[in-house]
Amino acid sequence: MKKIIIASTSTVHGSDYLSYILPTLATFFKEVSTILFIPYARPSGISYDDYTIKAKKAFEKINIKVKGIHEYNNPKDAVLKAEAIFTGGGNTFELVNQLYKQDIINSLQEAVNGGTPYLGTSAGSNICGVTMMNTNDMPIVYPPSFTTLGFIPFNINAHYLDPNPDSTHMGETRETRIKEYHVFNTTPVLGLREGSWLEVINKDIVLRGDYTARLFKANESPREIPSNSKVIV
Amino acid sequence: MKKIIIASTSTVHGSDYLSYILPTLATFFKEVSTILFIPYARPSGISYDDYTIKAKKAFEKINIKVKGIHEYNNPKDAVLKAEAIFTGGGNTFELVNQLYKQDIINSLQEAVNGGTPYLGTSAGSNICGVTMMNTNDMPIVYPPSFTTLGFIPFNINAHYLDPNPDSTHMGETRETRIKEYHVFNTTPVLGLREGSWLEVINKDIVLRGDYTARLFKANESPREIPSNSKVIV
Repeated sequence: MKKIIIASTSTVHGSDYLSYILPTLATFFKEVSTILFIPYARPSGISYDDYTIKAKKAFEKINIKVKGIHEYNNPKDAVLKAEAIFTGGGNTFELVNQLYKQDIINSLQEAVNGGTPYLGTSAGSNICGVTMMNTNDMPIVYPPSFTTLGFIPFNINAHYLDPNPDSTHMGETRETRIKEYHVFNTTPVLGLREGSWLEVINKDIVLRGDYTARLFKANESPREIPSNSKVIV
Repeated sequence: MKKIIIASTSTVHGSDYLSYILPTLATFFKEVSTILFIPYARPSGISYDDYTIKAKKAFEKINIKVKGIHEYNNPKDAVLKAEAIFTGGGNTFELVNQLYKQDIINSLQEAVNGGTPYLGTSAGSNICGVTMMNTNDMPIVYPPSFTTLGFIPFNINAHYLDPNPDSTHMGETRETRIKEYHVFNTTPVLGLREGSWLEVINKDIVLRGDYTARLFKANESPREIPSNSKVIV
């Protein structure tokens, strides 16, 4: 049975790392004593050790230990034997690059589809989709593929931002970018606003948090999914 | 002799397509009667024909004809025989994908390094750098490589945006993203603000327009390049 939390962001403005979602995680991980942390996305380029310390500090508040995947000799084994897995945010291109380089795509699919609880935030959530093609990140490395873990039958746009009507900047809005994506692709995309997350229990995908989420499908007008309702694409 | 204009954007807020830079283009292209237009970046997914009409309407104001590369049977030949070339903005991933698919990377290098005047805006400017790794665009297609034309010895971040101190959004600032890039790469990056452009005459690269540009180098603090001064990396 699949058990996954897919969060738009690790941190909401003005609060500590993971603190907005910690009560949810305490319940979600209540049978877990140690989480395997995947720090490959390296936000701001920080080291795997430093990033793992950050995750440790958050999870010790709910009495869960954290161990970084880089502390193991065999990352595949670490994934397959993990009690639970957390992939943190950062740069999605580098994260996906390392998933391929360390050859753990299949192991992650085997573990999580087999019931190992998984938490993703931001880049760690993008990889739960079919591809990473709706990331907002800069392509600072060239991964061998954009195909990701496919835990859900659509893609995630994390940190979804509504158009700002006052902006004078000519860069494309998020909605324009996702519509461009649908000129070339058919996989639906869910824009998850900061503070929202998906709770996946087997085939049921439910939106949680205070906000609606915006669902984009090829050749259809986008629509808002209410909080606490199922996401059906 | 190389002759290139590398513009951050085609359009500044509140004005028509290319109008802010049209007086400069009238001088830059004064010996040119027809420009070859490369519409591959397809902003908002518009067709090559529609995009070419948009370019035509702008250039007819300065009495220059525009012909789309898709109107030719042999795109390599079209590039090599062009009087001048303009690559418009849109999605950099799809643009680069098509440059490889149509196999015109070498032809563009031969033509432009041999003296064919070139204008790029936005995505069409990103490809003038060493790689497309500093684009802001969404990776909606997977190009065979991120390596681009290398007309200049650094990369471009078009539509460069300064951090907004009032923002409560947790997505990375442009500066943070470029600094992450330099954890993995050494090529310098120039953040070009909207309304700025580079004028490349052979080896001389001069910043034009009303704004400074922000130069990022690995392991150095970023610095501002004044308008009308040479960009030396």
